[in-house]
Amino acid sequence: MTQDEFAREAHPVAGIRLGTAEAGIKRQGRKDLLIIEACEGATCAAVFTQNAFCAAPVQVARKHLVSNPRWLLINSGNANAGTGPQGLLDAYATCEDLAKSVGAIPSQVLPFSTGVIGEYLPVEKIRDAIPRAVSKLNESSWESAAQAIMTTDTRPKIASKIVVLSSGAPVTVTGIAKGAGMIQPNMATMLAFVATDAKLDQSILQELLVDVADRTFNCITIDGDTSTNDACVLLASCQVDSQSLKPGTQDYELFSAAVLSVCSDLAEAIVRDGEGATKFIRILVEEAVDPSEARLVAKTIAHSPLVKTAFFASDPNWGRILAAIGRAGCQDLIIDRVSVWLDDILIVENGGRALGYTELQGATVMKRKDITIKVKLGRGCVSTSVLTCDFSYDYVRINAEYRT
Amino acid sequence: MTQDEFAREAHPVAGIRLGTAEAGIKRQGRKDLLIIEACEGATCAAVFTQNAFCAAPVQVARKHLVSNPRWLLINSGNANAGTGPQGLLDAYATCEDLAKSVGAIPSQVLPFSTGVIGEYLPVEKIRDAIPRAVSKLNESSWESAAQAIMTTDTRPKIASKIVVLSSGAPVTVTGIAKGAGMIQPNMATMLAFVATDAKLDQSILQELLVDVADRTFNCITIDGDTSTNDACVLLASCQVDSQSLKPGTQDYELFSAAVLSVCSDLAEAIVRDGEGATKFIRILVEEAVDPSEARLVAKTIAHSPLVKTAFFASDPNWGRILAAIGRAGCQDLIIDRVSVWLDDILIVENGGRALGYTELQGATVMKRKDITIKVKLGRGCVSTSVLTCDFSYDYVRINAEYRT
Repeated sequence: MTQDEFAREAHPVAGIRLGTAEAGIKRQGRKDLLIIEACEGATCAAVFTQNAFCAAPVQVARKHLVSNPRWLLINSGNANAGTGPQGLLDAYATCEDLAKSVGAIPSQVLPFSTGVIGEYLPVEKIRDAIPRAVSKLNESSWESAAQAIMTTDTRPKIASKIVVLSSGAPVTVTGIAKGAGMIQPNMATMLAFVATDAKLDQSILQELLVDVADRTFNCITIDGDTSTNDACVLLASCQVDSQSLKPGTQDYELFSAAVLSVCSDLAEAIVRDGEGATKFIRILVEEAVDPSEARLVAKTIAHSPLVKTAFFASDPNWGRILAAIGRAGCQDLIIDRVSVWLDDILIVENGGRALGYTELQGATVMKRKDITIKVKLGRGCVSTSVLTCDFSYDYVRINAEYRT
Repeated sequence: MTQDEFAREAHPVAGIRLGTAEAGIKRQGRKDLLIIEACEGATCAAVFTQNAFCAAPVQVARKHLVSNPRWLLINSGNANAGTGPQGLLDAYATCEDLAKSVGAIPSQVLPFSTGVIGEYLPVEKIRDAIPRAVSKLNESSWESAAQAIMTTDTRPKIASKIVVLSSGAPVTVTGIAKGAGMIQPNMATMLAFVATDAKLDQSILQELLVDVADRTFNCITIDGDTSTNDACVLLASCQVDSQSLKPGTQDYELFSAAVLSVCSDLAEAIVRDGEGATKFIRILVEEAVDPSEARLVAKTIAHSPLVKTAFFASDPNWGRILAAIGRAGCQDLIIDRVSVWLDDILIVENGGRALGYTELQGATVMKRKDITIKVKLGRGCVSTSVLTCDFSYDYVRINAEYRT
């Protein structure tokens, strides 16, 4: 996917309707409220931030998830986080408001908020705007929905895919996201909402989402910060005329690959739109002993401000990559077995600069906008991949000036 | 200690001589070689970086430490790291050169290097300069020594203290340091050399150094990066006419407090001279279950680029501090019991903004140059303290432009 392909065509998903409204939560004149409605019989899976200080809407959504929810209520402009007991009451109140408006019970509504931490949710404004968003519910509003959940995002993030089951029935997977919890958790939170018309039991849907989120959204990182509000939802409207999809079947493999592809595209779009990002960096760690070691090394490199500033400067400063690998905490790492590539250039082997490597080769790679750092640990056969971006003046500016 | 008191008077240490020279390692016209010599009968303790990619001199110094070394050979301008087998040969060669010059055996020399990673050590230049540095050895050159080990440091770092034993004999502890491994590990490495005329057995000296380093140099952090070359040495010339100091005695307590004080001052000086630092931040974590939990929370706050950029902007953005606490990984953290102070202002209690806290109060504290973040976890009775600084445009500039 290239940078220009973010806002690609969003295929409507049968049984999933979306409606937006201007609630004026943080400022006037922009869509900041989104309602997603799944038809009766739909199933819903969700994963949430692991941050202990999770926001009020996350706490409520976690509880409501067991009630087979069919409505998602999402606002931007205010995170309703760090708001204590009042924040919980506010989150419940907005669920009640939407439930009343559509004739449901409040526990069928999952609330999501993204925006400033520590300010109370303007419940009245949301209450007023809900009927307007409900009146607009339709299956074609994915673009408008992607815009309504943006905060500092510079562009909407949409991914969509159609696959054809063995019966000949087409299945659609469409998703939107906003970035990025790890870039700007104070206001921004990573949120992703993905829907399909495929038929799946809730437990299978949940297992799939956990697996996919772990391989996509959990593999992107900007600065190691985890938002209080991160969430990802997968809705299945079950409108496709087929048996429920079950793991182990060819149709399930096809379908789950489509979900993985959509979530991968959304995750990549979040990193590419990272605050201040000028470079897109893929970190491949190979030959690790186990997945946790592979991820530990990849994330240590990805979080190193020294590596990230070197990439911003297009400086092939491989010593910083080595130092990050060395401090990642691998038990008994034999540094002579470690090798490091920048794209296709071998830069480190036998614990030092590779024979034949020249600074010019490194500098050539570093001028690119998309760069892969590949690390072979020489310890086992497990690989992982983590996406990140560089660290620029603009990152400091945006995060220093955000509230002013 | 205030910012102006770094380069305070260095009391000479009987039995410890220092000599510097201009070797022209990275550039001409500056002292870049330092030799420290301890008299016969001295004992020597050292601690080194935990980075698996430790530099050649670190590997050699670790081996030589068992040979009761009496000479330290330190160069700035080149780290001799990431240099593979050749780097090891080079480090050994410089030890031999110094040993020849002073009539010792090579294993009595500990080598230390700080500077660019990945370039071979200019052994010839060092060989030429060693006799000049040896010829200048004397007990009064602490200031000159502190300057010779500087890289991007803006000022030399010296701390010195005299305590009087129960016998009436004065004991001196004097140390120098350069910063800072965690700020600019590529060239800069944290090095500290502390000497005393007190009499201590090597094993006791080593135990003391491990404990003191853990409470001082291991409690400062800028960006979480650990250098390939970090090292800290404690030399005891044993010239004071007394019994060997033993733990459990009043004299030992007095002496070890002096070593702790000197190392604390040096550690603080390193943070205050951090690259691009505009603010000095002390993070106190109290009421933790155990020391590792306390340190985990303190370091998670200290490493958060979002917290650090907020401090740079003087923005009392307490949501970012909360988010860092929440993701630190405390098992079953009860967020309602957590409270957070900025200096003497209570900003968070019961999982949200404190009653009565106003943005104005927070803004007033944030304008200060020295700020303490105090976190009470409400879980146990263990405390810790970590020192760090903010994250400015200059950090990005210095680390992006370093090699150009």
